[in-house]
Amino acid sequence: MVSSEQRNAVLPDDAGPLGIICGGGNLPLVIADAASRRGRRVVMFALRGFAAVEVERYPCHWIVLGALGRFFRLLRQEGCRDLVFIGTLTRPRFGRFRLDLATIRRLPRIARAFRGGDDHLLAGIARLIEDEGFRMVGAHEIAPDLLLPEGPLGTCVPSEQDQVDIEWGLALLAATGPFDIGQAAVVAGRHVLAIEASEGTDRMLDRVVALRKEGRIRVPAGTGVLVKAPKPQQDRRFDLPTIGPETVEAVARAGLAGLAAVAGAAIVAEPQRVAPLAEERGVFVVGIKPTGAGA
Amino acid sequence: MVSSEQRNAVLPDDAGPLGIICGGGNLPLVIADAASRRGRRVVMFALRGFAAVEVERYPCHWIVLGALGRFFRLLRQEGCRDLVFIGTLTRPRFGRFRLDLATIRRLPRIARAFRGGDDHLLAGIARLIEDEGFRMVGAHEIAPDLLLPEGPLGTCVPSEQDQVDIEWGLALLAATGPFDIGQAAVVAGRHVLAIEASEGTDRMLDRVVALRKEGRIRVPAGTGVLVKAPKPQQDRRFDLPTIGPETVEAVARAGLAGLAAVAGAAIVAEPQRVAPLAEERGVFVVGIKPTGAGA
Repeated sequence: MVSSEQRNAVLPDDAGPLGIICGGGNLPLVIADAASRRGRRVVMFALRGFAAVEVERYPCHWIVLGALGRFFRLLRQEGCRDLVFIGTLTRPRFGRFRLDLATIRRLPRIARAFRGGDDHLLAGIARLIEDEGFRMVGAHEIAPDLLLPEGPLGTCVPSEQDQVDIEWGLALLAATGPFDIGQAAVVAGRHVLAIEASEGTDRMLDRVVALRKEGRIRVPAGTGVLVKAPKPQQDRRFDLPTIGPETVEAVARAGLAGLAAVAGAAIVAEPQRVAPLAEERGVFVVGIKPTGAGA
Repeated sequence: MVSSEQRNAVLPDDAGPLGIICGGGNLPLVIADAASRRGRRVVMFALRGFAAVEVERYPCHWIVLGALGRFFRLLRQEGCRDLVFIGTLTRPRFGRFRLDLATIRRLPRIARAFRGGDDHLLAGIARLIEDEGFRMVGAHEIAPDLLLPEGPLGTCVPSEQDQVDIEWGLALLAATGPFDIGQAAVVAGRHVLAIEASEGTDRMLDRVVALRKEGRIRVPAGTGVLVKAPKPQQDRRFDLPTIGPETVEAVARAGLAGLAAVAGAAIVAEPQRVAPLAEERGVFVVGIKPTGAGA
């Protein structure tokens, strides 16, 4: 799945310690473990209010939004040149946090970053960090094994009808990509049941469950597909679509046939749990070969 | 707003009684009143499970899905050549209703109509009805005064930032239109907060309320716009976007600045109530001049 060149590219001899800016969930630890297994020192920069306390298993600094000066100082002190940002993060409300001098100096750029979708925001903040001499690295460059491979995980496979729905969903997500919105949709019989914006994939699937209960969605159980894709113009270092055991559970709860994501462009959290769980729940999880526009 | 040719076109001398296929809500009665005021006889064909009992104020037949034979017979008996379909309708589950012979004979066409989005379904069923010699007419052809005019209803007007969000929303809906999904989105600061698929506009706005309460949407109250538009390829005789007093209330509850829809391509239910209510709630309701792609 991943070439050895790719592996080598991310582990230059002089890479130094890896800084992980931790949002919520367990992915920061998964990435830390992966880097650590390869002998790289890891330092966690845990976002207060988002990161789980478990990230303290590694050397850890708790940081707050709005204190860029302290953050840059800590990075230099720890010798971290490479940085990964990973984990869930609610879009913060601009102007709601206390700002230090370094942040205030960069306010016009930060304000511009806030005017647009999430990619625009993340890319703007990343550029600001890189201008200080740091390097933003994709989580999948550190842990390429976490990327969804092509083909099914487990033994369930999509039917012909599911394939049609997957193609329809990928085409839809390619069309909405330029608007920097969610990366997921639910399609059943070429009928789009739900599309994700700021609510997140789990909330969107909960909606499908509720609409089905109320009789507003009347496709039979076991039909329909969750499709996830990166945005066409997306900087893949940030916010790749993620699937994990909870996604499989939510897909099953929503009565769908399975979930499809673009191979090599989605992170599988806990891959060793996803395949058996998918089998147990009778849903497919499949990596789709990336095509020109959809990938 | 509406040319006299348009008015004349819908009231030929020999038009005969108008059949109204009634979904839910009060729009069937609004259309019936409009036709009736102009001296046209009206016969209601009320869809059981969807239409309100109040439609019985006019001569009325209750009809069920799957009984096309009886429906065609009643239409001929009443001398209705022109038909309007109006009101809310949940997408029925194909195969869940009892079928008469006339329906069974048309099953392959009906099944094909079900394979796709709502427009595809409505257009397929409409063609099937028209092949029997009936004529499907748009609700707005019967009651052109119900079409949203250009400019604001009431005194609240969109700000410059709101205008940017309106344009962004219209462009998004133009991109999703070919996928035959919802006709509405919520945009704030060029950030798409929600996009409608099968849940309907009110549910989508409820979601914005909930996400805001949970802190997942952090734009300040009084920012953001609900944008509604017809799909680019849509047959305007069916399912034009509709706004009414409940929409205004929902927009206010969601903490948005206002709502925008394409002028001449949205139906305003109870226009005499919408403008004062918008003023009272401090939200704008504006008809946007249709442009090439967005209209």
